[in-house]
Amino acid sequence: MLLTGMNIPDMSLPRVVIVGGGFAGLSVARALSGTKFQVVLLDKHNYHTFQPLLYQVATAGLEPDAIAFPIRKIFKKHQNFFFRMTEVKSVSPEKNTLHTSIGSLVYDHLIIASGSKTNYFGIAGMEEQSMSMKSIPEALNLRSLILQNFERALLSSELEKQRSLMSFVIIGAGPTGVELAGALGELKTHVLAKDYPDLDLRKMQIHLIEAAPRVLAPMDPVSSAKAAQYLKELNVNIWVDTTVKDVKGNKVYTNSDKVFETDNIIWTAGVIGAAIDGLDDALTKPNRIEVNEYNQVKGHTNIYALGDVAQMNTPSTPKGHPMLAQVAIQQGNLLAKNLTNATLGKPLKAFKYNDLGSMATIGRNRAVVELPKFKFQGLFAWYVWMFVHLVSLVGFRNRVIVLINWIWNYVNYDRGIRLIIRPFKREIPNGNE
Amino acid sequence: MLLTGMNIPDMSLPRVVIVGGGFAGLSVARALSGTKFQVVLLDKHNYHTFQPLLYQVATAGLEPDAIAFPIRKIFKKHQNFFFRMTEVKSVSPEKNTLHTSIGSLVYDHLIIASGSKTNYFGIAGMEEQSMSMKSIPEALNLRSLILQNFERALLSSELEKQRSLMSFVIIGAGPTGVELAGALGELKTHVLAKDYPDLDLRKMQIHLIEAAPRVLAPMDPVSSAKAAQYLKELNVNIWVDTTVKDVKGNKVYTNSDKVFETDNIIWTAGVIGAAIDGLDDALTKPNRIEVNEYNQVKGHTNIYALGDVAQMNTPSTPKGHPMLAQVAIQQGNLLAKNLTNATLGKPLKAFKYNDLGSMATIGRNRAVVELPKFKFQGLFAWYVWMFVHLVSLVGFRNRVIVLINWIWNYVNYDRGIRLIIRPFKREIPNGNE
Repeated sequence: MLLTGMNIPDMSLPRVVIVGGGFAGLSVARALSGTKFQVVLLDKHNYHTFQPLLYQVATAGLEPDAIAFPIRKIFKKHQNFFFRMTEVKSVSPEKNTLHTSIGSLVYDHLIIASGSKTNYFGIAGMEEQSMSMKSIPEALNLRSLILQNFERALLSSELEKQRSLMSFVIIGAGPTGVELAGALGELKTHVLAKDYPDLDLRKMQIHLIEAAPRVLAPMDPVSSAKAAQYLKELNVNIWVDTTVKDVKGNKVYTNSDKVFETDNIIWTAGVIGAAIDGLDDALTKPNRIEVNEYNQVKGHTNIYALGDVAQMNTPSTPKGHPMLAQVAIQQGNLLAKNLTNATLGKPLKAFKYNDLGSMATIGRNRAVVELPKFKFQGLFAWYVWMFVHLVSLVGFRNRVIVLINWIWNYVNYDRGIRLIIRPFKREIPNGNE
Repeated sequence: MLLTGMNIPDMSLPRVVIVGGGFAGLSVARALSGTKFQVVLLDKHNYHTFQPLLYQVATAGLEPDAIAFPIRKIFKKHQNFFFRMTEVKSVSPEKNTLHTSIGSLVYDHLIIASGSKTNYFGIAGMEEQSMSMKSIPEALNLRSLILQNFERALLSSELEKQRSLMSFVIIGAGPTGVELAGALGELKTHVLAKDYPDLDLRKMQIHLIEAAPRVLAPMDPVSSAKAAQYLKELNVNIWVDTTVKDVKGNKVYTNSDKVFETDNIIWTAGVIGAAIDGLDDALTKPNRIEVNEYNQVKGHTNIYALGDVAQMNTPSTPKGHPMLAQVAIQQGNLLAKNLTNATLGKPLKAFKYNDLGSMATIGRNRAVVELPKFKFQGLFAWYVWMFVHLVSLVGFRNRVIVLINWIWNYVNYDRGIRLIIRPFKREIPNGNE
């Protein structure tokens, strides 16, 4: 058994290298289990992150272990499977070689499932001044920052400074921004008011800014209206048709005269693909990788892209599919089948997205759900939201931990994890861990 | 209501300032609830840490929220109570003023419950080269380091380097060292062997080094012998009568010819008091603060020291009391009573330590327990250990979370939280967060 770079044994099986252990990477790796491939999965973390619940980590409702799952544990019974924790740099397609921070690796098939990253739309200073929420370290940084700024507000005698420390500006009213705003609204009423009796909590203003004319713009106007109503009930100020133009210190400037002052800027306004270097011919404008209906990267037959990073332009999706977990999972499963089909000489099957619907929750007992055939809001939607998220988590342990925390938080109107374990320092670039 | 430095309102009540939210600080603050004092509690963290279970955080068995409890939550219903997150620097007794990183504060009574810190006995380089386990960030750093070094071991083709990355040298076989060694032994057999099928786990050596002639030296020889037997069953190598002289790179030199090579040096060999500046006349050699039988600091009538940082020399404790949670809690409760007694003109009561016993656990189903009247080991001792630790935790939520994790880990032979959330980097000084 020869070892190549990165100490991956050279087996007499075709080698599939998968970049990224998100929804797409995980689903294709799992579906390849038991097939005649050597599977190498690479990720910069040693765990899979269930991103839809990151906002609950940021708002002290869940610990990371509830939504993160060790990748080695998922695959511990799999044959011919290898995981390496590394940062992938680039690919040399002409040599069938992938370059990473721990060495290079030759592949027979390369699957790029590197997901997406935050898009700051070129607003100078926004990356440094704002918090994003794409990873667990980022969510923990946000949790620390919220609590640190409340501790700091206690020490300030200046009214303006106190207001700025206690106020939140969330830019982008997609599901992440909406759910985070709702969670902050609940944190204000049920937790922070009790923890900080010395502070006048009316100074805590939560602003949700959206460039589109309504929150949850990709959903039906009925859902948007209901979500907006729920947010207002939680004292969230909604600013639609509002674009952020600039940020300077604690001031956020918009396309209107409105200027927001806050020490808590949270950026959830957009993402672009997290493409890797070396596939420039297939790169699209939002930094995604153009693929055909089999998820093959444009100009290549043994390189594939899946999920957020893949852009499959079809008549019904001229700008590619939405960056959703469902797309990633379905593409991963299909690609595993197609890889096997190809080795058996069977025809490949083209991808067709089966839209299972979308949903968002806004505080306790409130959610909006859109299924393919009908849509609904309120308490029942909230149950559906919880059920879908619980069963989507990887592993029984995580489901148990999340459920217990939810029950606890619901019964006690509590968020028990308001711990500043590692104080957030602005010097450390966001998400660089 | 006048505000003084640090924005603590000036009430017409005598002000008690407590430094430290550990067992001692918490117990005196709670016992002062409902009395005619203004209570100000200061801590560098916004949570209380249940230190006896830190080793389970380090070995992927528990998340921080299981053993940390938000201080503001403990006191949310208390009147006249104020918490500030800050680092205490020094005291000016002649001005009744305490100096902190966020300002100065005048006190009527000052209670120093700042605990203990790691003692490296002047071994050059040990602080930089080793991991300690006195705080949650330190325990999380250790968790990351263990997993990172296993990931690195996979990438090494050099046998010596692999052995060094996979080996552990724990210096100090007190309860912390013994419990950690046992937990690592279990991690090796039940978790790491499955996670890393490519690695030969026989290379993972766990060494426990102790200067005294036996492990758990303060306990009865019967307990020590049983603990040593349990450790050997978990493949821990015990080196008694062994002192560490020097550390260079990954080499640990001892008083014998034995040199250990390891990338995982864990220092649990000793602590000294974490006294604050300004009380030099009362400072003892192990950096504790000398107090009388009422916990009054030598030479002062309105400054007190409690718990680990206090040294109360009595005929039965010529070197002060052991640094144990029980001492801290009992002293805290008594001091609260004495403060009230003093205002009522009642006589003060002298401290008398009520030794409730000591215990340690070494892996599943194994523990040693010493109660005042009898001692026992094995399965029943393990149940007692678990029960005592569960009921000692602050808050019902933490008990539930710990219990569920314990049941899960026991039934599944698992440690579910093997997540490298923030990779450990040697540049960041240990415990500086």
